[in-house]
Amino acid sequence: MMRALAALAAASLGAHAATPVPDLMPLPASISWGDGKLVIDSTFRVAAAGCQDARIAAAAARLPARLTRQTGIPIPRAAAAAAAATLVIECKGPGEKVQSPLEDESYRLDVAAQQARIAAPTAVGALHGIETFLQLVIPGQDGFAVPALRIEDKPRFAWRGLMIDVSRHFLPVEVIERNLDGMAAVKLNVFHWHLSDDQGFRVESRRFPKLQQLASDGLYYTQDQVRHIVAYARDRGIRVVPEFDMPGHSTAWFAAYPELASAPGPYRIERGFGVFDPCMDPSRERVFQFLDAFIGEMAALFPDEYFHTGGDEVNGKDWDRSPRIRQFKRARGLKTDEDLQAYFSKRVHAIVMAHGKKVIGWDEILDPKLPKGSVVQAWRGPRILADAARRGYPVILSAGYYLDLLQPAAFHYGNDPLGGEAAALGAGERSRVLGGEACQWAELISGENADLRIWPRMAAIAERLWSGSDVTDVGSMYRRLESASVRLEYLGLTHRSVQGPMLDRIAAGQPAGALRTLGAALEPVKGYARHAARAYKSSTPLNRMVDATPPESGAAREFSGAVDALLAGDQAQREGVRTRLAGWRDQYEALKPVFAASSLAAELEPVSRDVSALAAAGIEALDARPTPPGWVEFLERAKKPRAELLIVILDPVRKLVEAAGAPPPAAANKP
Amino acid sequence: MMRALAALAAASLGAHAATPVPDLMPLPASISWGDGKLVIDSTFRVAAAGCQDARIAAAAARLPARLTRQTGIPIPRAAAAAAAATLVIECKGPGEKVQSPLEDESYRLDVAAQQARIAAPTAVGALHGIETFLQLVIPGQDGFAVPALRIEDKPRFAWRGLMIDVSRHFLPVEVIERNLDGMAAVKLNVFHWHLSDDQGFRVESRRFPKLQQLASDGLYYTQDQVRHIVAYARDRGIRVVPEFDMPGHSTAWFAAYPELASAPGPYRIERGFGVFDPCMDPSRERVFQFLDAFIGEMAALFPDEYFHTGGDEVNGKDWDRSPRIRQFKRARGLKTDEDLQAYFSKRVHAIVMAHGKKVIGWDEILDPKLPKGSVVQAWRGPRILADAARRGYPVILSAGYYLDLLQPAAFHYGNDPLGGEAAALGAGERSRVLGGEACQWAELISGENADLRIWPRMAAIAERLWSGSDVTDVGSMYRRLESASVRLEYLGLTHRSVQGPMLDRIAAGQPAGALRTLGAALEPVKGYARHAARAYKSSTPLNRMVDATPPESGAAREFSGAVDALLAGDQAQREGVRTRLAGWRDQYEALKPVFAASSLAAELEPVSRDVSALAAAGIEALDARPTPPGWVEFLERAKKPRAELLIVILDPVRKLVEAAGAPPPAAANKP
Repeated sequence: MMRALAALAAASLGAHAATPVPDLMPLPASISWGDGKLVIDSTFRVAAAGCQDARIAAAAARLPARLTRQTGIPIPRAAAAAAAATLVIECKGPGEKVQSPLEDESYRLDVAAQQARIAAPTAVGALHGIETFLQLVIPGQDGFAVPALRIEDKPRFAWRGLMIDVSRHFLPVEVIERNLDGMAAVKLNVFHWHLSDDQGFRVESRRFPKLQQLASDGLYYTQDQVRHIVAYARDRGIRVVPEFDMPGHSTAWFAAYPELASAPGPYRIERGFGVFDPCMDPSRERVFQFLDAFIGEMAALFPDEYFHTGGDEVNGKDWDRSPRIRQFKRARGLKTDEDLQAYFSKRVHAIVMAHGKKVIGWDEILDPKLPKGSVVQAWRGPRILADAARRGYPVILSAGYYLDLLQPAAFHYGNDPLGGEAAALGAGERSRVLGGEACQWAELISGENADLRIWPRMAAIAERLWSGSDVTDVGSMYRRLESASVRLEYLGLTHRSVQGPMLDRIAAGQPAGALRTLGAALEPVKGYARHAARAYKSSTPLNRMVDATPPESGAAREFSGAVDALLAGDQAQREGVRTRLAGWRDQYEALKPVFAASSLAAELEPVSRDVSALAAAGIEALDARPTPPGWVEFLERAKKPRAELLIVILDPVRKLVEAAGAPPPAAANKP
Repeated sequence: MMRALAALAAASLGAHAATPVPDLMPLPASISWGDGKLVIDSTFRVAAAGCQDARIAAAAARLPARLTRQTGIPIPRAAAAAAAATLVIECKGPGEKVQSPLEDESYRLDVAAQQARIAAPTAVGALHGIETFLQLVIPGQDGFAVPALRIEDKPRFAWRGLMIDVSRHFLPVEVIERNLDGMAAVKLNVFHWHLSDDQGFRVESRRFPKLQQLASDGLYYTQDQVRHIVAYARDRGIRVVPEFDMPGHSTAWFAAYPELASAPGPYRIERGFGVFDPCMDPSRERVFQFLDAFIGEMAALFPDEYFHTGGDEVNGKDWDRSPRIRQFKRARGLKTDEDLQAYFSKRVHAIVMAHGKKVIGWDEILDPKLPKGSVVQAWRGPRILADAARRGYPVILSAGYYLDLLQPAAFHYGNDPLGGEAAALGAGERSRVLGGEACQWAELISGENADLRIWPRMAAIAERLWSGSDVTDVGSMYRRLESASVRLEYLGLTHRSVQGPMLDRIAAGQPAGALRTLGAALEPVKGYARHAARAYKSSTPLNRMVDATPPESGAAREFSGAVDALLAGDQAQREGVRTRLAGWRDQYEALKPVFAASSLAAELEPVSRDVSALAAAGIEALDARPTPPGWVEFLERAKKPRAELLIVILDPVRKLVEAAGAPPPAAANKP
């Protein structure tokens, strides 16, 4: 198995040199290659043999249109008998009535010249097999085909999720749908839906309708829409875990029901971002009565066996300010605010369990009173993951998977749920590490650019959670990630195409091509640096260059690799490096009219000028001219963020310049 | 008025030099500029004052989301009183219950620093005013704003349409919706829906359900979908004129009801393209009984006062082959097949009118027996338009507006319904020229690339039909067309963004950037040349470079202009011309791995190589080196279409080369 995998990752299979190797992502557990290929053309037909599960029928019905979008070949929606079908899908059983982390997700895919066959114990496994099949359809030298092979595959981790915050910025149903399609394509199986926070309450409650009426700005999902999304996800092998964050991150609730809060109010929906004081009042029984009724309503709406009650970032300030709550703590012998939160959590967890659900919460819920079987979501670091596993709790990793921090895919890819502190766990403890969840917090995304922030990096995390722990080749990952990124757009995701309209808007009627060139040299600042740069609010337009710029520049990464190779003596890189640099040098001149015309572009003038100067210095260095005067001061300025953007070609150009003319030796004056 | 217009077209208003001039399309009848501007930010609110028409309420409700898409500024859906609104919409009356060509479509738009106000006699006029307002929202130096102005506007022609054929390739409802959005944005008011042809019958009939069951491949609009599209169009000021083409172009009907045909059959849905023999049988009363019932059903489904019964391209062969039909002609004294078609048409037109509709048909229906008031759609040339107008019929022009022939926008823009033969018409005759309709026949489009074929050229035709006859500056048109093209993507049209996924598919996992560079030097062959190149069928994949290449290359047009300027002495163009040429020279080397890997790209190798060689010759010429050897033979080869693509930078490069070194004088050998 490992040999086949390594060969796949290296894309250099002797016998298949003429056949391009498909860029699968996530890599399957095992592949063995056969001879020949299965041709894909307009005669393609699918048969679902012995699958009683409606999900397979629905997936089969979607397949012709998906193949058409991917290949451009018109494929009619027509059923076929198994013998005549191009692809036969067999599943032994329908799978669980409500998909759980225990679901068998394995499948086998056999492709021969005449037919392909997916065999799986459950419908969910078969769905994964279909996604693998679609990834294998590539245009070879004689049209579209799938290479003959056998794949046997199953996931390394049972919980492979994406959390999307829809409170800080609401995301329309169609954005959720296409992200579910993307999740299914890379075999993720949990959509964690962060439905309430200080900035908005996003689901219709019939018991407590003021929640959507007063706490959502009219931007919420109706219960019909929730049921639609749950069914849409289930059809794609994805569980939906709802989160209602409490007792903190709850200002929006209080805009509707101030009687739940620890302070008298009045409350308004929070428009800023950060950790705020408003907090539910654990000293009042009416709060738990409300939550019992509310959780009961939501437990019926969301079929998943897990229910997420948040629990993160309670600052305790409103508790400390309340004489009544201080008195309550004394009376109950609760010494600290952590003790008080543990009391609150215990009450809420009992309610959740009384409604037939298991608890999941952020890692602050880890407490001796936490019910056994509750899942701890480790967001503050790997140590708490290991700690929770040792204390007997199932646990998932989110620390290191925060997509909103705009780290490179390689960073997330290297973040193994069983790495770091968890590497020292015993076998029994390790088995409690169920997997991980990427998190997309929504301070700085809108429906327009959400895809651009989530994809394609999410696919690299999906591979970390699905594929073997030895699948760690970053070069292979990036190459396959590019193919995955292209395929994801055929599902309707817009992470690539939306850059066009966003840059056109910034260009304000001028040609946007040079903005694209400039953008390839840039990345948004990382971590929480954008919040340090300005006071963002939910009403702040997210229409600037930083919002249209992907978290990671593939062009800059390739450029950096080419420079390294050139400096190591690979002269074949020289022309490519020069061409890239010429583009970056020339963009400034091309953009001058844009800076003058557009308020959205004006802030880019200094960074564009510095990219141009940097590229010009790089070209001088290629021509073996020595380090220009003022170079050190220039670098100091150029490496500072401007317009919340970083010049990410700075390091490779610095290498070129320093290689061309060594700086004056520091020790020259010494004897 | 004309002075203001000319200034707008030239975009050089002294007093407004600091404010970019909005690129309106179509240009309005009059503009006068005021002082200052109306700022557009998240406080934007709209009020519909005294408009009782539901269309205005719906348009106002859509406005915040449209502004958000266009500007990136979050704008809540919140109503406002007129005094507090940013934009007030006033209409005197609701307009016609069913919109007609007589509808008053005029409006006035006043923009001041505090408020904008649209005043219109009807809801349709107000809708046009909203579109103009949106086009005026541009990012200036201090954020988005609308310049202060007064626009008074009304259309030159009452009938401004787009015909889309959905028979040869079916287009899903969402494609129709976004094209209606695009039509409304450029003030078109007729969607002519070509619903049946040899290759498919595309609407549900409850009276004759075999039509959709046996004649559509399952690809048809349900009656609910038809009602939805009709309402969607009406909400945007657009009439929907259905067409059921008869007696020819009707093979699909016969796949369901062979008893309507002139020959015994059996019939199958036609998969090829062209003019076919199958034809309805005018000698049988049962045919007219069927059509009476069918047209009655459809007349109720489509509220427009006009009903299109086609009538084009009857070749008469099946009539001539039928002894029964020959006998019928003799018995009725019908000498020719044209006479027989006139008899058929007279019967069908009587049915249409009996169901309360007016007739519209292709220009073959022009016959002395054609009922007065019937509209003749002139597709075979301007002469028949003039002829029909002289004979007292209202007429619309489609000749010269066939989008599927892939002509440049300037070609269509110069095609005036009152130009050519119509210029000689008297005033009364001229008044019968109602306008025009662009036609998008569907042999070579799919849901994927339909937008790419229709837009943005459709906007230039829309301007021809709306704006004054003196609005003819092609340079201004192209500049504004580019802005219109950008704006149309915010409506959901994909003519720009779909090129990315289509080129990615052709690149088959390799970077697609060089394909985009190559594509900028190319255009699809024009007219019907693609059908000469290969035998297209409805099952032929439309996923090749020619399908992804826009009908007109803006880059090539700009390059050509720059070369002309350079050769006229404008040295400032030199570097830009060189950079363009370098890109075209280098794309071949970059694409070699793509040609090797992808069956979709392999056919591009010769054309890519020739573009590269051409560009290299252009660079040599810039460096003042003389005409290369073999140049004439090279040009002969390079100007031939390959892969159904033309190299459209050939002429400007030839000019460069010839200017650099004059070819050997032909008269050198003569004394």
